[in-house]
Amino acid sequence: MKIAILGGTGNEGFGLGFRWAAAGHQIIIGSRLAEKGASAAADMQARLPEAAISGTDNLTAVHQADLAVLSVPYSAQAATLATVQEALAGKLLITVVAPSGEKKSRVYTLPGGLSAAEEAQAQLGEAVRVVAAFQNIGAHHLLDLTHDLDCDVLICGEKKEDKDVAMQLCTDAGLRGVNAGALQNARAVEGMTAVLIAINVIHKVKSAGLRITGI
Amino acid sequence: MKIAILGGTGNEGFGLGFRWAAAGHQIIIGSRLAEKGASAAADMQARLPEAAISGTDNLTAVHQADLAVLSVPYSAQAATLATVQEALAGKLLITVVAPSGEKKSRVYTLPGGLSAAEEAQAQLGEAVRVVAAFQNIGAHHLLDLTHDLDCDVLICGEKKEDKDVAMQLCTDAGLRGVNAGALQNARAVEGMTAVLIAINVIHKVKSAGLRITGI
Repeated sequence: MKIAILGGTGNEGFGLGFRWAAAGHQIIIGSRLAEKGASAAADMQARLPEAAISGTDNLTAVHQADLAVLSVPYSAQAATLATVQEALAGKLLITVVAPSGEKKSRVYTLPGGLSAAEEAQAQLGEAVRVVAAFQNIGAHHLLDLTHDLDCDVLICGEKKEDKDVAMQLCTDAGLRGVNAGALQNARAVEGMTAVLIAINVIHKVKSAGLRITGI
Repeated sequence: MKIAILGGTGNEGFGLGFRWAAAGHQIIIGSRLAEKGASAAADMQARLPEAAISGTDNLTAVHQADLAVLSVPYSAQAATLATVQEALAGKLLITVVAPSGEKKSRVYTLPGGLSAAEEAQAQLGEAVRVVAAFQNIGAHHLLDLTHDLDCDVLICGEKKEDKDVAMQLCTDAGLRGVNAGALQNARAVEGMTAVLIAINVIHKVKSAGLRITGI
């Protein structure tokens, strides 16, 4: 697939893009500034000489892609989506965004009580299908393809076929995806990012993760 | 310890009390009606003839106990706490409550944006220390002591010494407790109960659970 990663210069988006590029997908790293996207793409290309990687601005990236992945800080979410909204029409948007407050190790509730993923869906309207995934995956080990990521990806969204696309991207990144129900459930899944950060701090580790048992 | 279980006639409270009674704790099953508490205690005693088990009304149970466990439906939380508030002064309250809306498999956000645990703390004030735990543990296998529960308990609260008490109760119930940070983090942990129910429905299983990896 041709995957645009909005905010793909950040650790999380870059790390996921790296794993998908290594798995054979075409990666287009998007950034607010085209030259930053191109620079990150050159970095990724140097690590994966055989892969299909390019970088540009977010809007151009979405135009070139089959699907888009949103990996920006929550504070930049609404503005980023506004710049690409029309180009996203008819496409799937997988959002990785997990809001955090002043203390990153505390669950942060957005003023309206929605998840960031639901806010994205509300902003984009019916023309775009939003799925939430990869919130709880630390960027720490993504660039080491030999590292076995001991965590699951909880996937929230309305349509099974869209969640199946996210599920495949989990597999391609070396992760297990788990269908975790409606997009609304991203409220808890996004919050678990802060809980895992708290667990990292308390237990003096770097990459606490979640596994689902019993399935 | 002498443990009062408020709402101990329900599946979750009864199951946890059963495991703690089997581990040697003295269990006082509380209910809105003393005779229902006594009846549930007789049931538990028949299963564990050697254990120290009694049943009464919630207020009497708290008076007789070192610590209390709140295991009522969220809709009954505020009214139940109002009846025992004075008796709880100086004691630890471990709350198991996870709010659910019309669809149990969807994360339900309380109108104020707080967790049920934070609402309990706000209602009870500084005289009572509230810790949240056991939200994500299905009642399904608690009564089978030979069943190895493949899930962790996330423990949220302000004071480590109070969370250590909850941690010990995890161990005594055959579970691993994980310190998951501030009481505020119960917002996500309570929500994960609905996510696990969604996973149960989607994957046609009965007891999906959470494990924390990397610690």
